[in-house]
Amino acid sequence: MAKEIERKFLVDSAKLCLPENGVIIKQGYIATASKTAVRIRVKGEQAFLTLKGENRGAVRSEFEYPIPMADAQAMLTELCQRPYIDKTRYEIPLGSHIWEVDIFHGDNQGLCVAEIELGAEDEVFAKPQWLSQEVTGDARYYNSSLVKQPYSLWPESNNHY
Amino acid sequence: MAKEIERKFLVDSAKLCLPENGVIIKQGYIATASKTAVRIRVKGEQAFLTLKGENRGAVRSEFEYPIPMADAQAMLTELCQRPYIDKTRYEIPLGSHIWEVDIFHGDNQGLCVAEIELGAEDEVFAKPQWLSQEVTGDARYYNSSLVKQPYSLWPESNNHY
Repeated sequence: MAKEIERKFLVDSAKLCLPENGVIIKQGYIATASKTAVRIRVKGEQAFLTLKGENRGAVRSEFEYPIPMADAQAMLTELCQRPYIDKTRYEIPLGSHIWEVDIFHGDNQGLCVAEIELGAEDEVFAKPQWLSQEVTGDARYYNSSLVKQPYSLWPESNNHY
Repeated sequence: MAKEIERKFLVDSAKLCLPENGVIIKQGYIATASKTAVRIRVKGEQAFLTLKGENRGAVRSEFEYPIPMADAQAMLTELCQRPYIDKTRYEIPLGSHIWEVDIFHGDNQGLCVAEIELGAEDEVFAKPQWLSQEVTGDARYYNSSLVKQPYSLWPESNNHY
């Protein structure tokens, strides 16, 4: 169990020079009838089952367990909504923190988001110059929401295809 | 990952002499918008997170992971629907199989169900004399359904209180 304290921002990708060490993430969600997210994630060679509660400000309960890859693949196929979330994650250290930058593909192409995990809600952190608008707690940017309403369909994406 | 092959029956509890070794089970469900069940179970001193797919006959995909008790308690409180399922489970060996008999409490009091896990759908098994109607695949008897529509509210329960 963990209380995840995380702030999320859009990224001005024109200002961002990505490192080479991206990890491909594929994840799916069990369709829930509440604000709880049930996620199956394949991250490189590893797989995880994660439950997340509703956001309260920047704080969200998170319960994550490593699972066998074969289980994850079977659950993605048999139990998860479509489409999956496909993205590449880059880790960018800055000061004492690590920014996780996600470049989305497929139905969410054009979306680029950065997250920082904090030890406390009021923890101070350095903001890189490629950071744009904060979207912490904005449910549209939950990955679980992007399955149902992909970024490519948003009016602001300018990316209708 | 497992394919769970299970048949479920009602029990004529007047004919059944329960053993003394019952284990108390408390479980809750994440509210899902599909036929996938996401269950948090506390069984005696152990806790599990389980995902189950839709029944196809007597076959259902099941993915079960042991989790820390503190996680289970937190997820029951923070993420699960109410009411919880409270029941006592008795294991009754018969021939080469073990019958799992669940006596429900609380909102499902009056319900008594027996399950047998099989190695194949057509596997033959001995039927004890306390077995009543088969309810395999009847979604009303899913524990995840009994959260939403408890047995005490059913017309056939004769147990309105």
